[in-house]
Amino acid sequence: MKKELVIYLILLVFMLQSCNPTSGDKLPNFVIIFCDDLGYGDIGPFGHPTIKTPNLDRLASEGQRWTSFYVAASVCTPSRAGLMTGRLPIRSGMCDDGRRVLFPNSAGGLQQSEITIARALKQAGYATACIGKWHLGHLPEYLPTNHGFDYYYGIPYSNDMDRVTDGDQTYNNVPLLQNLEIIERPADQSTLTKRYTEESIKFIKENKDRHFFLYLAHTMPHIPLFRSGDFEDVSLRGLFGDVIEEIDWSTGEIIRALKEAGIDKNTLVLFTSDNGPWAIMKLDGGSPGILTGEKGATFEGGMREPTIFWWPGRIPPGTIMDMGTTMDIFPTFCKLAGVEVPGDRIYDGEDISQALFGTGHTGRDVVFYYRGTRIFAVRKGPYKAHLITKSAYGPDDEMEHDPPLLYHLEHDPSELYNIADQHPGAIEDIRAEIEKHRQTLEPVENQLQKMIAE
Amino acid sequence: MKKELVIYLILLVFMLQSCNPTSGDKLPNFVIIFCDDLGYGDIGPFGHPTIKTPNLDRLASEGQRWTSFYVAASVCTPSRAGLMTGRLPIRSGMCDDGRRVLFPNSAGGLQQSEITIARALKQAGYATACIGKWHLGHLPEYLPTNHGFDYYYGIPYSNDMDRVTDGDQTYNNVPLLQNLEIIERPADQSTLTKRYTEESIKFIKENKDRHFFLYLAHTMPHIPLFRSGDFEDVSLRGLFGDVIEEIDWSTGEIIRALKEAGIDKNTLVLFTSDNGPWAIMKLDGGSPGILTGEKGATFEGGMREPTIFWWPGRIPPGTIMDMGTTMDIFPTFCKLAGVEVPGDRIYDGEDISQALFGTGHTGRDVVFYYRGTRIFAVRKGPYKAHLITKSAYGPDDEMEHDPPLLYHLEHDPSELYNIADQHPGAIEDIRAEIEKHRQTLEPVENQLQKMIAE
Repeated sequence: MKKELVIYLILLVFMLQSCNPTSGDKLPNFVIIFCDDLGYGDIGPFGHPTIKTPNLDRLASEGQRWTSFYVAASVCTPSRAGLMTGRLPIRSGMCDDGRRVLFPNSAGGLQQSEITIARALKQAGYATACIGKWHLGHLPEYLPTNHGFDYYYGIPYSNDMDRVTDGDQTYNNVPLLQNLEIIERPADQSTLTKRYTEESIKFIKENKDRHFFLYLAHTMPHIPLFRSGDFEDVSLRGLFGDVIEEIDWSTGEIIRALKEAGIDKNTLVLFTSDNGPWAIMKLDGGSPGILTGEKGATFEGGMREPTIFWWPGRIPPGTIMDMGTTMDIFPTFCKLAGVEVPGDRIYDGEDISQALFGTGHTGRDVVFYYRGTRIFAVRKGPYKAHLITKSAYGPDDEMEHDPPLLYHLEHDPSELYNIADQHPGAIEDIRAEIEKHRQTLEPVENQLQKMIAE
Repeated sequence: MKKELVIYLILLVFMLQSCNPTSGDKLPNFVIIFCDDLGYGDIGPFGHPTIKTPNLDRLASEGQRWTSFYVAASVCTPSRAGLMTGRLPIRSGMCDDGRRVLFPNSAGGLQQSEITIARALKQAGYATACIGKWHLGHLPEYLPTNHGFDYYYGIPYSNDMDRVTDGDQTYNNVPLLQNLEIIERPADQSTLTKRYTEESIKFIKENKDRHFFLYLAHTMPHIPLFRSGDFEDVSLRGLFGDVIEEIDWSTGEIIRALKEAGIDKNTLVLFTSDNGPWAIMKLDGGSPGILTGEKGATFEGGMREPTIFWWPGRIPPGTIMDMGTTMDIFPTFCKLAGVEVPGDRIYDGEDISQALFGTGHTGRDVVFYYRGTRIFAVRKGPYKAHLITKSAYGPDDEMEHDPPLLYHLEHDPSELYNIADQHPGAIEDIRAEIEKHRQTLEPVENQLQKMIAE
């Protein structure tokens, strides 16, 4: 595979160029705890009144609560492609206007030409594990162990897929994989959060004496909701609350494992989610809290996530209102690991370590709200313009707005008051940003339209 | 005044009966920081994304965040009557269906037959001060110094009253009082938060060697919004945010004064507000966050407030989801001060100290949502029934609901999904609570209809 060889050579060159910390320093560990469909308002530190999250409360008060932290898309596959590559999914072909995510009959996935966080960190000697939901392609070449992860344990796509009716029973015949092998099918979803946690702790223990990257991507609270026996009917919020309280427990266990291994002070933990709450599912879905919007659409609630960074002794406690995105994680982790970001491609993320360490701000001034392959909205500074709006699911009520709807997100985080007529200059600025951005785009093969031949 | 004498005799008897802590113990100090029109979502610990409240964040993480804490009414005067007396305003005549609060031409106010927290605590030797907005009657007999407060410094009613047009200028000719004297008119509202803070700190310093009750009732963020020069344009949220960030600063200064006086470990601090955000004022008003509703109406956002209790060493940190109300403060403070609650009248509040100290739950199972003299909604356990709904202000769109609208507030804190048809039993239970409650009501003179003769 000539293409792959080229990529490895590029990485090798970058590795040699990298200013690695002096050999005496131990590189930091990285843990990403990534939820599925968690709403901005669904945990204590972001104001939920009836979901108890004492571990996340503690994480937030010891760490940093980021209140304007965005994902790359409002649905699963493109959002995760953005996190893993540091690039908008439009650059990797991981978004589409019809099939918005990958399905069990998809033949596409994240290409080998894309470099994941795991692959970049591996070059600096990191142990890497992906535990949980992947959803960037389930054919072997797309799976985590072919994308820089030493170890994979989890389900390859969403837990509501592979729907099977067998007599009276209807269930999701989702496989559970270990590396490239299916080890259980259907996956017993009620124990997934628990088993992911156990696998994560095992990985932490095994790798405590070297540096590692753990990507723990929970299957929950994506519907259908499941939790283990210990979390049945524990939450005032009902089933959805039970599920979040198990994730809270899991987070506490991860932190405990880091402390017990004596590596908490050398580990950066990020807690966030892939997109906003699945509102059409009513009370089985979450809440955007003070925001408007939901999974699948481009109002804030669809793409702004409750985010906590934690690294005791390094990240000073507080609330950060700077804009950040999941795409910033790739360059930030590279920076902290002394790995140079590959120079042969465009990155949409930026190193945010100065904001994390309290020595500066993020450089970010612009956020693009893509829906599929099209830009529906753009934020520049406090202003957000909606060029197109459309319900997340259901009716085809797509509307183009000219002038766009314009909101001042700092004054009006709930997007209640359209002020387009008062700020034509802000709209012009945003249009200019779109033009500039479009010039950076190159044609790429659409991965979400590729289907397995029947 | 024969009536007053009787009251004092009653109080004397209760005082003698009270089981006071042994004389060696110093009684705890109490500080209530009471905002005006602060929404459930307007501070960091309750999820606001762009209002920076580092002092309240710390207060909440060191203390208790109460997520289901209610006020006695969704507008100012009756809410404050409930706080001060521990009784629903329907019992003191401090509510009305037309004139919903007291105005400068009002002749009514809180009667001498009512016993305020201050008067109850004074019997146990407390130094007492009311600093800020009163709004329980501005004729001399109704003012704080005739209701158990040793000292008063503040404005007697809302800061948008006494509107005067003088040539080109229009302003609010609101007086600033010290005890019974007007010391400034119009009050310079831009410095009120600052001066209230200074007065509070002076009171704390002067009384640090005895026990005291400080009621700091901010004029803000009631409209018109004002803040001092130091807080101009500091907040991403704009003017409203500046105002809240000054209140946050003020709270930090109060805590600092308690610490410097060495009495923080002997002081219970409560932070809350009188009612929800003034939504018709758009971005000059606040936000109910995840809740629905606003000042003036009986959806949750109008009457559930962002509440923090803090008492280092006594109140264990955490989040309390039990129901509590401002009316519980009277019996709770009495309990902690060793003062027996007067037995000659009905109290709607209950001692919540067990929940505060982590040794039990509040006993509260029912909340009545009065609008004026009528019950619009009732919560029992997780269920809330709306018998009547009406816009907070503006159109007369009052609607009676039979069956009532029914929401499960623990599952559905945003009151989105009416489940009346699924839970007729919950509605019957609520109707029975209303009947039981009505039997406790006695006719009382309406104080809000009384006007000064012109």
